[in-house]
Amino acid sequence: MRELRALQARLHGVWSEAGYGEVWTPTLEYEEVLRRGDARAAGAGFRTFDDHGNVLALRSDMTIPIARLVSNRYAHVKPPIRLTYFSHAYRMVKVRSGQPREFLQGGLELIGVPAPEGDAEVIALTLEGLIAAGLGRHRLGLGDGALYGRLLAELEVPEAQREPLLEALARRDLVELGVRVERLNVSPAARDLLERLPRLRGGREVLGQPDAPLAGAMDNLRAVYELLAERGVADRVIFDLGLVRELGYYTGMVFEVYDPAVGFAVGGGGRYDELIGRFGRPLPACGVGLDIHRVHVAQLEEERQT
Amino acid sequence: MRELRALQARLHGVWSEAGYGEVWTPTLEYEEVLRRGDARAAGAGFRTFDDHGNVLALRSDMTIPIARLVSNRYAHVKPPIRLTYFSHAYRMVKVRSGQPREFLQGGLELIGVPAPEGDAEVIALTLEGLIAAGLGRHRLGLGDGALYGRLLAELEVPEAQREPLLEALARRDLVELGVRVERLNVSPAARDLLERLPRLRGGREVLGQPDAPLAGAMDNLRAVYELLAERGVADRVIFDLGLVRELGYYTGMVFEVYDPAVGFAVGGGGRYDELIGRFGRPLPACGVGLDIHRVHVAQLEEERQT
Repeated sequence: MRELRALQARLHGVWSEAGYGEVWTPTLEYEEVLRRGDARAAGAGFRTFDDHGNVLALRSDMTIPIARLVSNRYAHVKPPIRLTYFSHAYRMVKVRSGQPREFLQGGLELIGVPAPEGDAEVIALTLEGLIAAGLGRHRLGLGDGALYGRLLAELEVPEAQREPLLEALARRDLVELGVRVERLNVSPAARDLLERLPRLRGGREVLGQPDAPLAGAMDNLRAVYELLAERGVADRVIFDLGLVRELGYYTGMVFEVYDPAVGFAVGGGGRYDELIGRFGRPLPACGVGLDIHRVHVAQLEEERQT
Repeated sequence: MRELRALQARLHGVWSEAGYGEVWTPTLEYEEVLRRGDARAAGAGFRTFDDHGNVLALRSDMTIPIARLVSNRYAHVKPPIRLTYFSHAYRMVKVRSGQPREFLQGGLELIGVPAPEGDAEVIALTLEGLIAAGLGRHRLGLGDGALYGRLLAELEVPEAQREPLLEALARRDLVELGVRVERLNVSPAARDLLERLPRLRGGREVLGQPDAPLAGAMDNLRAVYELLAERGVADRVIFDLGLVRELGYYTGMVFEVYDPAVGFAVGGGGRYDELIGRFGRPLPACGVGLDIHRVHVAQLEEERQT
């Protein structure tokens, strides 16, 4: 607990220094709020009832409650709005699966700053926060969560065939993805691109000569990279064009943070330009959430391995 | 949030300096655990289910989860065990009652130190923490939660008549208490004592010439007072012999903290020598829980009024 408290204080220090004000939202949200943000977010959680029979859910995510907060409580605050949080979130897991039901998240939400500037600010503060927290070997996988879907639309793949492809991609099941791509009625070049794209991983060269339908997303990723280079943190970025985050509200760049000292992501985030509008105040936004316990484990493992 | 964070840091500073290590327990407890601690604690909470159909409850209190923790996880740690926590707790309230469903508690549990030394340590650290947090006018009402029940037993009041009397006392309904005392088949002197005791409030003089059945409790309160005087905080104590705390696990001294700047208690605690044993490791213990938001309001009100 002492180490967790110190770790949070260091992240909080870097982020509040950068102008992010701390917010807190109730642990229990109306399920309808979570559902409006993302159907999966609502389904994942523990549910209970208030004395009027309304369904309450333990928040499974902080971004949706903050989107609601910005629309309701911050309705007249001029953007950009910079918010940070340190809160527990909850998910149903199988008993004895070794997964925690409750996890401590620390994160940022940057509201009202579009890509690429907003993307770069959130990514840079994620990396700088982790450096302040004592991590030295962390890397950030950067992609675009809307890329594959946009490519399928451009190639006029029928809607009914898109969903299973995107689900296979979200599970990183490249075997099933390959089988399904083979069955599509598209040109050999398109089929090649659909199979190749999720495997594109590496430095700036993977953005190389973008095929036409991908040019917009690639240009944004390139611009984000340049802004990160200016802040001196671009060397930690690995492009990963097959990256898709689990929650469905991402509309642009997405990222995950890894540490080679441990075998799991310690957090991630992305751009969600349509989420806040679902609660009444359309504003572009992006954010990050770190799993504080996982960051702590990564920090301990880095120390142990040196 | 900035002020709440600073307030918690100051309390945490004083308490960790005094040797209290921070603990955290899951937000969701098995309802059976809460029930074993106190039937009311289990009933007050929001409930949900895990995937095996076990009933889970949002903790309505931190003391019972910590009692479980000490019996299970600290089974081989030599007492005294000094623990502190800063956690949210939950209770069902009527919609629009103005009562929060969720409240942030900060507190201490001192395990393995009997009365009066343990009582005095917890009370002194409560008062010292609040001074460090910026309060200057707070007072502490000190009584004994088992006093009235013990007196009823000594006077051989039948069990069936005791419960309604204790409930009236817990509600501070001295009118109903008086009516019920009148009906008891006891001596005039006993009747007088039963009516007078809950109104005894003030300085050391209320401990005056204790009637025989109360001598033990009075001696303890006097000893606690002397220990507090040695630490220079006794001037904040007001004896209140009608004080009974809501939860049923208290076995000795109980206290509540007030601030004249606001019209509510900001926290309280007491001795619970039988609670930890219900989870398998009999140890004397006492503790305090402060409502951090209420302490914050009291702090702001004190500033406003000066």
